[in-house]
Amino acid sequence: MTRVVPILLTPGPLTTRLETRQAMLRDWGSRDDSFIAMTAEIRQRLLAVAGGGDRHVAVPLQGSGTFIVEAAIGTLLGPNDKLLVLINGAYGERILTIAQRLGRRALALRWPENQAVEPDLLEQTLRETPDITHVALVHCETTTGLENPLGAIAAITARHGKAFLVDAMSSFGALKIDIGRTPVTAVMASSNKCLEGAPGLGFAIVEKTALRAAQGNNPSLSLDLYEQWQGFEKNGQWRFTPPVQVAAALLAALRQLETEGGPEARLRRYRENFDILARGMERLGFRLFLSPADQAPIIATFHYPTTAGFHFPAFYQALAAEGFLIYPGKLSQADTFRIGCIGAIGGDDFRRLLQAIEVIAKDWTNTKSR
Amino acid sequence: MTRVVPILLTPGPLTTRLETRQAMLRDWGSRDDSFIAMTAEIRQRLLAVAGGGDRHVAVPLQGSGTFIVEAAIGTLLGPNDKLLVLINGAYGERILTIAQRLGRRALALRWPENQAVEPDLLEQTLRETPDITHVALVHCETTTGLENPLGAIAAITARHGKAFLVDAMSSFGALKIDIGRTPVTAVMASSNKCLEGAPGLGFAIVEKTALRAAQGNNPSLSLDLYEQWQGFEKNGQWRFTPPVQVAAALLAALRQLETEGGPEARLRRYRENFDILARGMERLGFRLFLSPADQAPIIATFHYPTTAGFHFPAFYQALAAEGFLIYPGKLSQADTFRIGCIGAIGGDDFRRLLQAIEVIAKDWTNTKSR
Ligand SMILES: Cc1ncc(COP(=O)(O)O)c(C=O)c1O
Ligand SMILES: Cc1ncc(COP(=O)(O)O)c(C=O)c1O
Repeated sequence: MTRVVPILLTPGPLTTRLETRQAMLRDWGSRDDSFIAMTAEIRQRLLAVAGGGDRHVAVPLQGSGTFIVEAAIGTLLGPNDKLLVLINGAYGERILTIAQRLGRRALALRWPENQAVEPDLLEQTLRETPDITHVALVHCETTTGLENPLGAIAAITARHGKAFLVDAMSSFGALKIDIGRTPVTAVMASSNKCLEGAPGLGFAIVEKTALRAAQGNNPSLSLDLYEQWQGFEKNGQWRFTPPVQVAAALLAALRQLETEGGPEARLRRYRENFDILARGMERLGFRLFLSPADQAPIIATFHYPTTAGFHFPAFYQALAAEGFLIYPGKLSQADTFRIGCIGAIGGDDFRRLLQAIEVIAKDWTNTKSR
Repeated sequence: MTRVVPILLTPGPLTTRLETRQAMLRDWGSRDDSFIAMTAEIRQRLLAVAGGGDRHVAVPLQGSGTFIVEAAIGTLLGPNDKLLVLINGAYGERILTIAQRLGRRALALRWPENQAVEPDLLEQTLRETPDITHVALVHCETTTGLENPLGAIAAITARHGKAFLVDAMSSFGALKIDIGRTPVTAVMASSNKCLEGAPGLGFAIVEKTALRAAQGNNPSLSLDLYEQWQGFEKNGQWRFTPPVQVAAALLAALRQLETEGGPEARLRRYRENFDILARGMERLGFRLFLSPADQAPIIATFHYPTTAGFHFPAFYQALAAEGFLIYPGKLSQADTFRIGCIGAIGGDDFRRLLQAIEVIAKDWTNTKSR
């Protein structure tokens, strides 16, 4: 148990601003004008963050990020469609699992967890398997922090006339996704990562033509994005009870994003966080899992140090006691841990973190002789 | 747009206590010990509110109430099962829709919206249609505020050896549901009605044997209650990012429920709210839609007055301007509006409401001559 309210160096839920949390201090009637206006502003701001215009529409949905990914897959794919998932981590695997469980036709291309998805292989597969109708990609694979080449994949997918679905859970609001220029059918993300809101809702930015064509596809009532969209269009209301406080926090967070200078400024702050962390950890003898070319400044994956005395649970607890929550690794291949660079945190937080790690790490070498 | 933060006289989201909302003022790491402890306490308290013991288990799920209903239907019914839904309102219809969309075999018995479900007809149907495996009932039909005879339906369902699923969305935490004595397979409800928490999560209290037998039933990854349960059992964590602040608010609300004296004391307060409202409205010439025998003190449905000058949208706005949000009706048969009696509100709120209505209603008779 931690003694202080910790800083969350995780890929979400993460540290939010006090103002964001304070937006949750009141109640709203979910069908009242004031909440309808909030919903409209959230939808418009989400669309703007993605660089979207009239061609796309933002559809928020109750639940976690996985819910919105499943909603998009279940709604946008019909029974005769076929999905190609480009996989280099756990969240790519999850998309495939979702499609298969829903009985959708799906296949995968896989790369090692430390390697970006390769456009050439996609090109080849689309030529060889013409009945593929949809391609899915995880923009930033949170498993490792790897940034996949969104633009190149989008261009190939579009050239072949396929729909393109992007899980941008851990990139949306920071890494550039300009759906005004990049051909994307749907981008899925959630309130609680780079947007720095509270967890409890996801959203998809979807091409209207694709949504319209998706009527009747989804066997799930709760996760039907077409009907969710129609609900908003009808009267500005959510079909089912929305998490009003979480929505209020998201709106506050979206306004702060604008105040900060938009996704570009946010990315700059995250990159600074990442650089301080990476340099400091290197100095302390830790090794990053990814090569710099593939690394997004969202979350850093470090190999376990070989130093005797290092034991991840003890390291985690020692940092937690100092007020820093880090994340275990999520890799099949290697022993790693992760430190998130996103959230309402800055360079000073990382400098304090590095000091704490330095102190804790002293014990490892001390116990080496045991 | 309302000028004051209104009191929500709706069936949820509703008015919560400031303490409950203040519980949302901090961040939690969803995989940290402190949040794991919160989750465990929430699950244990939910089970206790239902009067459950070792036979049942509480499984929270991200999303709104509809999500947990769909999760229970999709998980607990297999492809060879057959569901009988007892319907006397919109939420009963919704259960049927969910089952049908998921491709589950389902049939319905229907009663008028102002009439309670009749145990005799259930008895007869179960005799005549032996391949029914599950029976579903809405405990309090929020469409009208009608309380269905849970005990009698449960007894018949159990005598026939059928599984019994209860949508207790608007009753859980106030109307008695003692699953220690009443044979119930699963009760579904959400954080934001009689529990007086913030919206964003639902939960089911389910018989372990039924859950165990349900492995592999649900095509949905997000809504699979079996796997959600297994996730909690494995390490006390949620499978997918939980709405940490909403969970914190629910825990605060559950502790307050205990402080208030449990569901019995809460029901007493709601009944007092209802009685003040019903008597006052009658005095002002309004007529309740339901007969007293069927009425739960959860939400009151009133016929539109016949007075010239009454126009619901204007009435709604006039009350909103005074700080009271009421609810439109949800009936197919009659023009009605609804006033909720649940939430962190008491007799004084209803007395102020009645004064406001009295003033507004004066205009109706004044405009009569127009
Ligand atoms: C890329 C990606 N996709 C999907 C998810 C799933 O989101 P959630 O945990 O909110 O269900 C995550 C969560 O970290 C993620 O990083
Ligand atoms: C009886 C009942 N069932 C289901 C629901 C659906 O809940 P939600 O709106 O949270 O999806 C409600 C909501 O009022 C309800 O009253």
